[in-house]
Amino acid sequence: MPLPPPAWSLAPPRPLSTPHLERATARQSVLTKPPGSLGRLETVAIRLAALQANDRPQADAVAIVLFAGDHGITAQGVSAYPSAVTVQMLHNFAGGGAAIAVLARQLGASLTVADVGSCATAPIAGVVDRRIRAGTRDFSSGPAMTPEEAAAALDTGRALALEAATGADLLVLGEMGIGNTTSAAALGAALLGCTAADVAGRGTGIDDTRLARKIAVIDAALARHRLTGRRAPPLEALAAVGGYEIAALAGAMIACAQAGVPVLVDGFIVTAAALLATRINAAVQPWLLFSHASAEQGHRRLLDAMAAEPLLDLGLRLGEGSGAALTVPLLRAALALHNEMATFAEAGVAGPA
Amino acid sequence: MPLPPPAWSLAPPRPLSTPHLERATARQSVLTKPPGSLGRLETVAIRLAALQANDRPQADAVAIVLFAGDHGITAQGVSAYPSAVTVQMLHNFAGGGAAIAVLARQLGASLTVADVGSCATAPIAGVVDRRIRAGTRDFSSGPAMTPEEAAAALDTGRALALEAATGADLLVLGEMGIGNTTSAAALGAALLGCTAADVAGRGTGIDDTRLARKIAVIDAALARHRLTGRRAPPLEALAAVGGYEIAALAGAMIACAQAGVPVLVDGFIVTAAALLATRINAAVQPWLLFSHASAEQGHRRLLDAMAAEPLLDLGLRLGEGSGAALTVPLLRAALALHNEMATFAEAGVAGPA
Repeated sequence: MPLPPPAWSLAPPRPLSTPHLERATARQSVLTKPPGSLGRLETVAIRLAALQANDRPQADAVAIVLFAGDHGITAQGVSAYPSAVTVQMLHNFAGGGAAIAVLARQLGASLTVADVGSCATAPIAGVVDRRIRAGTRDFSSGPAMTPEEAAAALDTGRALALEAATGADLLVLGEMGIGNTTSAAALGAALLGCTAADVAGRGTGIDDTRLARKIAVIDAALARHRLTGRRAPPLEALAAVGGYEIAALAGAMIACAQAGVPVLVDGFIVTAAALLATRINAAVQPWLLFSHASAEQGHRRLLDAMAAEPLLDLGLRLGEGSGAALTVPLLRAALALHNEMATFAEAGVAGPA
Repeated sequence: MPLPPPAWSLAPPRPLSTPHLERATARQSVLTKPPGSLGRLETVAIRLAALQANDRPQADAVAIVLFAGDHGITAQGVSAYPSAVTVQMLHNFAGGGAAIAVLARQLGASLTVADVGSCATAPIAGVVDRRIRAGTRDFSSGPAMTPEEAAAALDTGRALALEAATGADLLVLGEMGIGNTTSAAALGAALLGCTAADVAGRGTGIDDTRLARKIAVIDAALARHRLTGRRAPPLEALAAVGGYEIAALAGAMIACAQAGVPVLVDGFIVTAAALLATRINAAVQPWLLFSHASAEQGHRRLLDAMAAEPLLDLGLRLGEGSGAALTVPLLRAALALHNEMATFAEAGVAGPA
């Protein structure tokens, strides 16, 4: 019997505001520019007006939440970096030297670093400790997590996101966890009913030999967990091969959609969490803004499954929420244009001849 | 006999600094991220370090220069908007209601609006009046400008850009001019030796009938000026079918490259000017950063001719320098990451296993 998602996760998201959508669309057509000439900046401004139910949508107050966790599957030699790097990077996030910390400062955004499952042996100053467990289990030999842990990780993501999103115009989600491209690829394959080769990539930079091993490990695990050749129910796939930070990300997305806070989705791992979230509750999707196309092979497949078209394509594959954070200035520009440009009537400019 | 470019335009640009390029490349490899994982943000940071000869390259002080001009070819019905809109938009730039004015405010950038050839009948407050002439001549029946006017427009672009770029970390170039996609397409076709259909597009939004007319007008003019089927010398092509603002843009690019100021190239028209600039002085090209792929059909062809890969692709086709301005926050982020991220050694993070 499939595991049921937590009851809260099935509640409907806030609906988009049709009047705001219509007024924003009308406004874009009378601003002093050829209709449609601002391309995707127009559509994203209109969407944010509808999501925020605000005729002057805002992206000034930005909250970034980064969920971290470790992965038992690293014992199978699937990653370029040792597992200890997860905890080392938690110190680097808190210390302000990591990419996402630099970007958060530049954006004037809050940064919450939440440990939901690392192998840290002591508390880390500046990191919120909400660990479900010290790393998932090695999913090549058994389930990554228990059903209770899966539900707890979703709940934790929800609670932390709602706390961080209070007063925020939008939420940026990121992650850290050595081994988590393997878990995300396995989860993606399980949810889509495809094979590891369709979704697994080089992660932090593994060579051909290790990539072949990663693919073999995932395919064997999918077979072991009877997840092959079908679109698995979301909680079943999550417990079998997922990660605590991936579950927390999905919980955060669902909760934000219910609370009416748009979410900027980062790269491969956060997109796998988005697929999980939309499989739990399909109506979440309009609240998810896809920020960038990752260099990670397999990202496109996950995006296509949600018909998602990211705004940026810069060959990024860092994670941490860095690609989503990089999209914030674009959204701010789109909204400044929407809110501040003169109309043809205001400026005394003629329309098409 | 081909017209010679002005002597100053043939002087070599400032060379890139190899030591800074090497140090920036080395630094990117020791920042706390998998090598290459910041994709194009890494390459652009390294390039700006080499261009600015600065180990901590900057993009804080940004100058935007917008050149405007009118086009006699509009008499042939090639545009969706009446020619009067050029002057109306000059008022809108100065009044702060146009897209580029909104973006300049948001970026904290200076905005110089220079009229180098509009049909304005009175001075416009906030617009620098350096008009060569009240619009180019209709190039379907004769040259768009005299050789002297072409040289004067290049000189004017140089002078205004050098003034605006004083103290600036980089220069954003934009344009305005009803009819200038027709002039830019004709110039591009003349410089590339291709036909109008290869480079002409819908501009501000013309329908199929008018696009067919635009293509026919350009092809007939290229034949009339004996610019068909060969790569025309740059000044000859400019005088025959170019625009004053396009010439000024090319002059600005060459002057900035000589002065050591990187230039952010906008969309179709500014890219046509970049092609002109690099045909006058090929060594200018490293100083040109291509910002976005325009929705204007033909932009790709011009970019390909310079092997240029723009950073953004957002379906923009507004002009004014808006796409280049939108790229500034990306450059600022790339440089903040380059300058402020911790190294592996500083953060005590392990490298690949």
